[in-house]
Amino acid sequence: MHRLKVGLIQKKYSADKRANMTANAASVRNAAKHGARLIVLPELHNTLYFCQTENTDCFDLAEKIPGPSTDFYGSLAARLKIVLVTSLFEKRSSGLYHNTVIVFDKDGSIAGRYRKMHIPDDPGYYEKFYFTPGDLGFKPIETSAGMLGVMVCWDQWYPEAARLMSLAGADILIYPTAIGWNLRDNADEKNRQLDAWITVQRGHAIANGMHVISVNRTGLEKASDGKGKIDFWGNSFVSGCQGELLARAAADREETLIIELNMHRNETVRHSWPFLRDRRIDAYEGIDQRFRY
Amino acid sequence: MHRLKVGLIQKKYSADKRANMTANAASVRNAAKHGARLIVLPELHNTLYFCQTENTDCFDLAEKIPGPSTDFYGSLAARLKIVLVTSLFEKRSSGLYHNTVIVFDKDGSIAGRYRKMHIPDDPGYYEKFYFTPGDLGFKPIETSAGMLGVMVCWDQWYPEAARLMSLAGADILIYPTAIGWNLRDNADEKNRQLDAWITVQRGHAIANGMHVISVNRTGLEKASDGKGKIDFWGNSFVSGCQGELLARAAADREETLIIELNMHRNETVRHSWPFLRDRRIDAYEGIDQRFRY
Repeated sequence: MHRLKVGLIQKKYSADKRANMTANAASVRNAAKHGARLIVLPELHNTLYFCQTENTDCFDLAEKIPGPSTDFYGSLAARLKIVLVTSLFEKRSSGLYHNTVIVFDKDGSIAGRYRKMHIPDDPGYYEKFYFTPGDLGFKPIETSAGMLGVMVCWDQWYPEAARLMSLAGADILIYPTAIGWNLRDNADEKNRQLDAWITVQRGHAIANGMHVISVNRTGLEKASDGKGKIDFWGNSFVSGCQGELLARAAADREETLIIELNMHRNETVRHSWPFLRDRRIDAYEGIDQRFRY
Repeated sequence: MHRLKVGLIQKKYSADKRANMTANAASVRNAAKHGARLIVLPELHNTLYFCQTENTDCFDLAEKIPGPSTDFYGSLAARLKIVLVTSLFEKRSSGLYHNTVIVFDKDGSIAGRYRKMHIPDDPGYYEKFYFTPGDLGFKPIETSAGMLGVMVCWDQWYPEAARLMSLAGADILIYPTAIGWNLRDNADEKNRQLDAWITVQRGHAIANGMHVISVNRTGLEKASDGKGKIDFWGNSFVSGCQGELLARAAADREETLIIELNMHRNETVRHSWPFLRDRRIDAYEGIDQRFRY
């Protein structure tokens, strides 16, 4: 159990949901063929990133869970005997939607769900319009591939979230993501943003002594109202337990990363860097406040 | 007030306390001459890093605060009209010592003190023998150069500490440090450690949208019992508010970094990345627990 081969599926998406699902399945099969036992898809991998505009028609993209998409991906996981991390637009009720991760175990059953806790709202990322913030907390999902600390995109900027997953026994942190460049930014700004995105997540790996898997989409997507576009920056990556980059995809093309992780590093790295030993839990009062004055 | 010129003093130290203090003062004077208004010295800059062994004689290195060292550095700050961040071995009472930062304002008065909260204890860093963990919490120190979120070394691995300083209104994070390589580690391990040290602190800059200043000592120091030695790795640096490296010193030599910071970046970067807006303060319960199961 110390060796875990993982697959990261970085893809472009179109407006054709059925075609996206078929293409995802092909990539997952290919990763499984190469031995991956834990496979991760990007955020909202069944559709375009529809949050570029606020459009009530997009609520029709959401699905009940369980529903057709969980049937589809559950069967796939069972057939390939893999643990599969999917990211779906969940319709919980009329007028109540979440940005939800569903994890399937290798028998195809739903091992658990995570509802995105931190919801962004920025030009081109109007997620507060679509998604109610998650109400399931930061709880790792138990699977045959380990305790998975799965979160989603904007969560990745929050050290509190990574720490809570770590304290709850996560073996690894996993972030399906949809993040990209605004075409109006210059090259320096784009580089700073991409580097910050990787760096803050490597920081979680270091502070918690565990691997981090981050899987992003790639490709240019236009907003449905024709007013905006996002150049999704790819760069899906795996960080080791000391923050070292173990694998990293290109920015501008589909790519599947297959890499074997030594999960025993969670143990050995924390022998040398026993950060959990010394946390000042008597002095963290106020961290659950909005601001301290 | 948007422009703040800072000076980072990376130095080697000897067993001669008076010589160390004189050399520190010369470097501080030089940085002030180049326009630095906020100057930071490394951790425990009056002495060798005595924590390589557990030796009761070393308690004699500690001083009352205020005392001779605060008189010395306070006069220096007043003469140069600078804000000065110093790191002293504080004797609070017989048998009660702290690893303490004293910040002087430009009139030479003590603007505030911070007692190192997270205390390491690892081979070569036997700090739990010498220092009682701080009891002043994570409170920025108000100075004419801004609200300084000053912590010390091992604190730099804890995102909770950086966040608490941020929530309490810090304008900048500052870490006097004494960290180095164990000579038995190979080059790969040494590189991973150094890179992790820089990365986790850049992560704090990103997650909190503020600059980070980290000042380390340099040079090889032997333990007083002849049994160990640490190769202090220098690499003092300044990170920008998006985690970008603005300045970085060499590993193996004394160096003074002088750099002008644009403190208005705290404002503009947080317009684009409003992480503080979306914190799930309703869902961080348990972060002040030792472990969650």
